[in-house]
Order: sequence, then C-alpha cells, then structure tokens
Amino acid sequence: MAEALSDQALMARAIRLAERGLYTTEPNPRVGCVLVRDGRIVGEGWHVRAGEGHAEVNALRQAGELARGATAYVTLEPCSHFGKTPPCADALVAAGVSRVVAAMQDPNPQVAGRGLQRLREAGVEVQCGLLEAEAGQLNPGFIKRMQQGLPWVRLKLAMSLDGRTAMASGESQWITGPQARADVQRLRARSGAIISGADSVLLDDSALTVRAAELGLAPELAAQVAQRQPLRVLVDGRLRVPLDRRLFHEPGPVLVVCADAMGREAEYQRPQLELLPLPGQNARVDLPRLLAELARRGCNEVLVESGAALAGAFWQAGLVDELTVYMAPRLLGSNARPLLQLPFDAMAQAGDLQIIDLRALGRDWRITAHPSRAQAD
Amino acid sequence: MAEALSDQALMARAIRLAERGLYTTEPNPRVGCVLVRDGRIVGEGWHVRAGEGHAEVNALRQAGELARGATAYVTLEPCSHFGKTPPCADALVAAGVSRVVAAMQDPNPQVAGRGLQRLREAGVEVQCGLLEAEAGQLNPGFIKRMQQGLPWVRLKLAMSLDGRTAMASGESQWITGPQARADVQRLRARSGAIISGADSVLLDDSALTVRAAELGLAPELAAQVAQRQPLRVLVDGRLRVPLDRRLFHEPGPVLVVCADAMGREAEYQRPQLELLPLPGQNARVDLPRLLAELARRGCNEVLVESGAALAGAFWQAGLVDELTVYMAPRLLGSNARPLLQLPFDAMAQAGDLQIIDLRALGRDWRITAHPSRAQAD
Repeated sequence: MAEALSDQALMARAIRLAERGLYTTEPNPRVGCVLVRDGRIVGEGWHVRAGEGHAEVNALRQAGELARGATAYVTLEPCSHFGKTPPCADALVAAGVSRVVAAMQDPNPQVAGRGLQRLREAGVEVQCGLLEAEAGQLNPGFIKRMQQGLPWVRLKLAMSLDGRTAMASGESQWITGPQARADVQRLRARSGAIISGADSVLLDDSALTVRAAELGLAPELAAQVAQRQPLRVLVDGRLRVPLDRRLFHEPGPVLVVCADAMGREAEYQRPQLELLPLPGQNARVDLPRLLAELARRGCNEVLVESGAALAGAFWQAGLVDELTVYMAPRLLGSNARPLLQLPFDAMAQAGDLQIIDLRALGRDWRITAHPSRAQAD
Repeated sequence: MAEALSDQALMARAIRLAERGLYTTEPNPRVGCVLVRDGRIVGEGWHVRAGEGHAEVNALRQAGELARGATAYVTLEPCSHFGKTPPCADALVAAGVSRVVAAMQDPNPQVAGRGLQRLREAGVEVQCGLLEAEAGQLNPGFIKRMQQGLPWVRLKLAMSLDGRTAMASGESQWITGPQARADVQRLRARSGAIISGADSVLLDDSALTVRAAELGLAPELAAQVAQRQPLRVLVDGRLRVPLDRRLFHEPGPVLVVCADAMGREAEYQRPQLELLPLPGQNARVDLPRLLAELARRGCNEVLVESGAALAGAFWQAGLVDELTVYMAPRLLGSNARPLLQLPFDAMAQAGDLQIIDLRALGRDWRITAHPSRAQAD
C-alpha cells in the first residue's frame, strides 16, 4: 500500500497470490494479479479453480471503478481467447487499465503474444519479462505441457542416509516422519496424476489419495484441496493387482495401464475405473506414451511414487524432470534395498544432477534435484 | 568497542577468537579471551599453538595496564597448574582483573573448578556457564579425551545421492568437487590423527596429508596449518601395504597398526614410522584400544577416512561420534559399491542419526550427523 512499491515488489506479490492456487488450479496454470493506481494496490486476485474466474477478472472485480488508469501486474500473459471465461485481455481493456506488466508470455506457442498484442492494439502500455524465471516456477507442468505435450514428471523417493528404502527381507516401515509424509501429501495435491507400479501397490496396499487431515494445511484450505483427487495411475503390465486393493476403493478416478488387457476388459468396467493398454517393448508399458496421454488429458504435473524398478525405468528413459528425495536420518545397511534399480556398470553411465533445494522437515531432510542438462536431453 | 556490548556478545566474540586456533592448537584446546574495561575491549587473545601463550596471557599482553579492574571473558576455565606456561588464573589475578566470566569448567574432572576457585580466593568475581554449549563445540575432542580417555571420532564418507561410493568394478574417481575436497583437507587439519585402512590405501594410494595449497584458507594461515601434519594411522591387520606407498614418503609421522607383526618389525624401523601390534578378536586390530592409545598420545579429534569395511567396523562397534558425509549430485546406480559395509538384516538393527548440519559446498552437499543417543550408548 506504500507509494514506494517497485514493479518488482508488485510482481513478487502477484506471484505469491498465484501460489494460493497451487493445489487447486489443475489443469489450468497458477496465476496472480495485482492492480495498482496512484501507488496504491486497488485490487488483487488469483486463479482458484478451472471454470472459475481468472486472476485478472478476480482482481478487477475487487478494484471496481478504481481499475481505470491502473497498472496490472500479472504472472502470465492475459488470455486472448474465449475458453470457459471471456478473454482477460478484453476485460482489462474494458475496465480502463492503462498499463500491463506480465512476467511471461503464454507458453503455448500457438497463442503466445496474442494477449499482449490485443492489449497493445487497444492502446494499453505493455511490458513483459519481469521476474520471468520466478513466475515460470509456478507452472513447470503447464509450461512443459504447452511446449512439449508432456507433463512435468516428479519422482518421489524416500531413503535412509545410506540410500536404502527397506531391508533385503522386504521388511519395511515408514522411515520418514510425519512432516515428510505431509509434504508428500502436498506433492500429490499439486499433481494432475500420481503414477505407481504393481510391485509397490501389492507390497504396501497404498491408496495414493490426497487426505485433508494429513496435508498440514489450514483446515478450510485442506478440505477444499482434498475435493479434487488427482488421477491415480497404476502401471500394471500384466494386470497382477487384484481389484480388492485399497487403491480401487477410495474416492477419485483410477487409470490402470497395462501392456496387454488379456481379454479382461470386463472386470475393469466399473465407475471411476479405466483400463488402457499401452504396449511397449519387451511386453512392458510404454512410459513415454503414457506421459503423452496424461498430458492430453490435461495433467500438468505428474508424481511418480513407485518401487525401485519402475522409478529406475522412468529415470533410465530420461523421463524424470525432478527428483524429490526424502532422507531419513538412519543407516539401513549395505544389505538393504536400493533407492533405484539402476544397473549401471561404468561411471560414464552415472546420472548427473543439480541439487536445487534442500530443507529440513522435522528430523528428515528433503532434497530436490534436477537432472543435469546432458542427462535431460 | 560500543558500551552496549552484552556479556553474551563478548563471550561470542571470545568464541570466534578461539576458532582461529582450530587447525593449530592440538593437543591443546581452542580457547579465546576478551578483556573489557569500562565497556571497551582492551585486550583480545587466543591460544595459537601448544607451548605458546594461552589465550588469557595473550589478551593480557595486549591490554597492558588497562587490564586492571577489567572483566575477562574466557571460553574455558583458566588453568591453575604449571604446564609449559604458568597458571593463567595467577596471571589474571596479577594483572588486576576484577571479574572473570568463563563459558565452561575445565573438562578434566581432576582439575575442574580449581582455576575458578583460585580466582575466587584471590577476590575475583567469577561466573561460569555463559554460552557453554557453544564453547563446548570448539573442543569436542579435548572434552571427550579429558572425560573418557578417548578421542572424538569423525567418520568421513563421500557418496553419490543414492548412497554409493564407486562402481562394482572398482572404477572410481573423485565424485565430489574441489570445494568438498578442500573441506576434507580442513577436517584433516583440525585432527590429531587420520585413520585409514589397508584396502583404501592399496586402492587409492592416498597420502592422507594436509596440503597448504588445497586447504582453501588464506595463504599465510594455510602455510602455518600445514606445518603440523596429523599422525597418519594405517590399520593394516596383516601388513599388506608395501612400504613404497605414498603414505610412507610424505612428511609427518605414520603409525602402522597390525594384529600381528609376524616378525617383520625390522622392516618398519624407519624415521617417522612406528609399528604397533594391537591384536583384537578374529585376528583383527582392536579398534577401541587403538582409540585409547591415540588419546593417550594427545589426539583430541580423529578422522576416519577409509573404505566401506573399516568404516562399517567403526560404526558397528559404536565408536563413531560424528558422520561427515559429502554427497555428490550423481546417481551411481544399484550395482555400485555401498557407503558402509553394514550387513544388517532387520530394521531394529538400523542406526539412528541426528542430522546437525547440512550445507552446500559448490555442487556438492555436506551432511553432518551424530548417532542418536540410543545408538551412541
């Protein structure tokens, strides 16, 4: 509300507003907007949920007549097309906004620049690119899907300090604490889909759902977040997982992907359940095709929560964009099960990473890493 | 120099002064001292090197006549005995210091409290216990040696993110970068002894020396630090390491510890070389006796830099006080060699840790952890 707020501070504010939609906007991007007139913030808004108002429209509603002559700070180029709502570019013009500062262009190459162009043609002063990197981090999945037709793939792993997940016998238990588990819940909540494999569902009988009470968010927000269950995807090449598993009996849609339906389609004809054969090489599921299919269905971010074999397969195929490793302060020993099934023989095969974030979660630590460029390409 | 400096701020300053002796005081503790009169710092000192002036004496020298009526902030109880230098308690009294604030008592139960008592008897006002935990962190090894007759054992490991050290073939290379390697040099430099094993010396031919150019310290300090080479200890149960290895040809003393000298004593009669049989169970070296022997020789902190087998043996015997793990942002895969040879079969055997520090070193990360109490006892 101070006069001295810089363009940068106001865009940072718009980014923080956008973050409020982190768990609810899928398949839409998270977007925030701040309207400023005469050095005063006159309206703020963010996109909450697909089908509801865009950030700009929400901010304009708050500003009312004060939007006339104002500057709009938006984290993403205002849209220029009729979707579920009218174009935001037109709404900004109609409200009399005189200047628009956008953090980044629309990542969809088909429409990038059109919204800004529409504003310019209506006489609005337009700037683009302020805090672009920061704004991009709001929507890694939306951006990748628009540009490459693929979702952002996050591989979640939990390990001991010596890189192990369970004892050789299969004996296993939560090795991470409640704060780390709440963080996993939030990773699920921000995702369009959660992928797991037959081995891990058979072993753990996990439901892979978002549970309001375990999100570690304010109760009202948590309840709102848990209303949208991400698509749960079971990679079950030869349909080994019985349909009495918890996965199939919790609310929300489930997609079972197999290499061969083996004539069992009828069994899978249930509400909220879909069977999809995606045969790949060696009678395995075609993982790249699965990801393309999820993108086609509007999944921006996908979370892989699986055992070492499927996780290793995603990694080796170069399909992983981000590793999220929860590290428990324990030593499970050299007989214990490995983090990833990655049968490398030579140093040259080793995967290089870049650690981008590291933080404490109770007694545990979370490491976020990206594959190095050479690996990712 | 401001009037407003609190007791706590002045003790914090004394701790920072003590840290300047981190790499040079062995076998003595690191100690710092600040003298304050009328709200002004009139003298500062720290212990640099065994045989040279103690922190209090160095600070008194700087203060001169201004010490009269001053308060002395010292990170450790002033000594009351004649060693290589006269008692500091007497020096403080003689200089007319009227108040002494000590962070902690002398950890040696034989003399603890005597220095403070001597001061009190001379009419000096005495307080003890300010920032005691912080001051204790200056000297984990000195404290443990005085209290238990054992050194502080730091186990250094370097691993990939998936907890591996080298390929199964033995193919290995620096997996960490130059900043992590400089940090290892500094760990060596602060230690009284460095312990390695036959396997790792045979494989890597490492010299285990402190090298001025690689310390990452200011050149003058680095040169000073590298003048003192920690005792290098080779655990070589059956004397498998030939004497032409680099370890035996770099400056500084070397102690070879075996389970059985096998009549080969004459070979090891060389300057700077000593052979010590310490037979334990199963024809192995007795590690607890080795540590007691190193403490007897004045080693406060001991660094174990070895392969997975010896490191695992130290861990399993409950001899490790601190784990320092350098984590390189790579995945070496599930065939690669484990961090520690720890053949646990059940979760109940797993070692619990407490992570006490985690920081970036270039592209790598360093994790410092302590065994949890249950494990350490």
